[in-house]
Amino acid sequence: MNPVELIIQKRNGKELQKEDIYYLIESYTNGSMPDYQMSAFLMASFIKGLSKDETAWLTSAMLESGKTLDLSMFPGPKIGKHSTGGIGDKTTLILTPIAMAAGIKVPQITGRGLGHTGGTLDKLDSIPGFDGRPSLEKYKKLIDYPGGFLAGQTDEVAPADRLMYSLRDVTGTVESIPLITASIMSKKIAEGTDGMVFDVKTGSGAFMKSYDDSKALAESLMYTAKAAGKKSLAMITEMSQPIGYFSGNWLEVYESILMLNGEYTEDIAEITLALAGAMLYLGGVADTVEAGYEQSMYILESGDAFDKFIEIIKVQGGDVDLIRFPEKYPVAPEIDFLYAPFDGFLKSVNGYELGMCLIDLGAGRYRKEDVIDYTAGLILTIKIGDPVKKGQKIGEVRTAKREVIDPVKKRIMQALEFSLYAQPKLKLVKEILY
Amino acid sequence: MNPVELIIQKRNGKELQKEDIYYLIESYTNGSMPDYQMSAFLMASFIKGLSKDETAWLTSAMLESGKTLDLSMFPGPKIGKHSTGGIGDKTTLILTPIAMAAGIKVPQITGRGLGHTGGTLDKLDSIPGFDGRPSLEKYKKLIDYPGGFLAGQTDEVAPADRLMYSLRDVTGTVESIPLITASIMSKKIAEGTDGMVFDVKTGSGAFMKSYDDSKALAESLMYTAKAAGKKSLAMITEMSQPIGYFSGNWLEVYESILMLNGEYTEDIAEITLALAGAMLYLGGVADTVEAGYEQSMYILESGDAFDKFIEIIKVQGGDVDLIRFPEKYPVAPEIDFLYAPFDGFLKSVNGYELGMCLIDLGAGRYRKEDVIDYTAGLILTIKIGDPVKKGQKIGEVRTAKREVIDPVKKRIMQALEFSLYAQPKLKLVKEILY
Repeated sequence: MNPVELIIQKRNGKELQKEDIYYLIESYTNGSMPDYQMSAFLMASFIKGLSKDETAWLTSAMLESGKTLDLSMFPGPKIGKHSTGGIGDKTTLILTPIAMAAGIKVPQITGRGLGHTGGTLDKLDSIPGFDGRPSLEKYKKLIDYPGGFLAGQTDEVAPADRLMYSLRDVTGTVESIPLITASIMSKKIAEGTDGMVFDVKTGSGAFMKSYDDSKALAESLMYTAKAAGKKSLAMITEMSQPIGYFSGNWLEVYESILMLNGEYTEDIAEITLALAGAMLYLGGVADTVEAGYEQSMYILESGDAFDKFIEIIKVQGGDVDLIRFPEKYPVAPEIDFLYAPFDGFLKSVNGYELGMCLIDLGAGRYRKEDVIDYTAGLILTIKIGDPVKKGQKIGEVRTAKREVIDPVKKRIMQALEFSLYAQPKLKLVKEILY
Repeated sequence: MNPVELIIQKRNGKELQKEDIYYLIESYTNGSMPDYQMSAFLMASFIKGLSKDETAWLTSAMLESGKTLDLSMFPGPKIGKHSTGGIGDKTTLILTPIAMAAGIKVPQITGRGLGHTGGTLDKLDSIPGFDGRPSLEKYKKLIDYPGGFLAGQTDEVAPADRLMYSLRDVTGTVESIPLITASIMSKKIAEGTDGMVFDVKTGSGAFMKSYDDSKALAESLMYTAKAAGKKSLAMITEMSQPIGYFSGNWLEVYESILMLNGEYTEDIAEITLALAGAMLYLGGVADTVEAGYEQSMYILESGDAFDKFIEIIKVQGGDVDLIRFPEKYPVAPEIDFLYAPFDGFLKSVNGYELGMCLIDLGAGRYRKEDVIDYTAGLILTIKIGDPVKKGQKIGEVRTAKREVIDPVKKRIMQALEFSLYAQPKLKLVKEILY
């Protein structure tokens, strides 16, 4: 076989065979196929598309480039969750201890933030002492006790994805549903679960801004999960505005602690409990997603989820004192406030712009090597549909960079659209795909 | 500017601006844009296409990556010629001295063969002592006397093309009319002529096998020439069967010498004199292409063209004794013959297959690093439409590799289709585009 022939076939829109795709991924991973050939293949795949089968083969080839967690020695349900990423999305921090408290093993491998969306791994890194990068062997111990973990991808998992993702980032081949699917699933299947819940976000703050694209991605993820013998369920959820009030790494851990202690906004609760409910359903702990939602609410309100969160943080080396007393955490040196411009209603939010503001404040990355300020962030205490009075405080920015405050405040206010007239609230869980 | 943004624009089918294309080519040539980004851009350009303007800008950006011949100090017409390459195509060797003998300056920069088509530079290299790679400075002296040259591309001309061509070859992005146009024209414009004649071949032995593609390439070449302020004319010529009887490097020099001495086949004469006539017409030496044809015929038959050929070879260091007495050249050690299978007519020829047979015999290259045997080749003494008798000798193969003779003879006979019924002759010059 010859990579050029396969590139030409894909360029001409032909469907490749399983062995062709394995050959390409193996050649690329072992270094015999150079970057310039892979980038030509990725561009041809981006423009001409990959079939469902090609996507499933690409996924398994990327998966098999690395190691996988073998959790077969653990009895009981093992369920994963993946979110396509959004602004202020701290649901993973909350639903993981809920599902674990319900008796589900949760090997939660999370990512870093890049561009306008944040990453759960960065949020966890804001907790002093927390080890978010244990080895694959250590992962197994954490599945045994406390029953799961929150951690980053190790170098042992899907090395092909790491190489290809870096290449896609610099060759204009990121926003492709088949390539995104293979990237997500090659890591997700490696977690060794029986099933997985997908939170596919849609809207201005999401990676997929149109509903059709979001649904197509959800279906592609589910097809690929099925091809790998995994149960799955996908929720398409609203991501036009931040989830909860707090966005920024430590600020989101802080808001998660509030929720785990029973103090929460409606939107965090709705999305988190729906996703946790879906995990309980897929794991066979609840008969329906709705029953799982109720059960998750009960686990949350009983305090069991908070206790489980403490266990997770403790066993992974994090400073539990800060989880119990989050008010001890340092506060950003510069704080400034946002005010409503007139009497009216919040009509829309450009989530992408808010994500870019978070980077400017120091809470995100333009480039992989950018350093994050864990205390930086944005607090926005109104939601689309909420009424506001002129001059009412609607939020605040926190940063170490005084010079960015004025431009960022201006950019935030431009990202918020107010209306004189009443506006509908957004439906948060838009569709559930079984 | 950022290469990724430009790659994404092209991926999305957007037309780039002149400064975008210059930025990409400059970045790639100076090494700041890596191969993997250029290959993604080339694949996006291949699939989405480049507009006529984009193609002209790409050409000029590639041209300006290197040096050009400034021939403005030479009075009189300066005309170039480019062929898209075929089997047994020795027309350049004949028309260059004809045009020079007519008073036209001809800076003829030629290429090497790769794949099924041969290269004029390889044919010239078969002449002992011939220097086919003088410097750009030496080129100028040759324009002064003897009034032109036959030589290969120097490293000083269009380095961007050399880099990009190597990359296209290994990334499945060769057969694109805009990319082919820019590659040809960046080198052709560098010759510093006032105008150029394009010989765009069509048929089974051509790079462009369909008539529509050949015509589209001819029009793209002419548009790009016009954008660079150059006169041009294109002929679409038949390339289903070899031109003349002899294919293979020295064998073609030999057949050119025969023609320059007045001994020639109809097809070589028709194509060569038409192209030479077009050069005379573009250079203002003849009033029409037809008048140029007659004038070229006269120059050929007077012996002036042969005298000019001797001058060219001599001043470039070649062994003139072998040009005067070509029968002194070594003959391939293995010779075998081809015979007609039954009484009938030659109906069709798979020129591509004959090109591949030439490689097997040692006369061409699969890979750039392959070494050529100048004595190897194929002699085929029948043309489509010719009648044959069963057992009649129709050609011969010459090689140093005894083991390839039987498979190559079989492959050649499979590439020739005979019929019991009379077959039409092919029209050689199919269309002239002014």
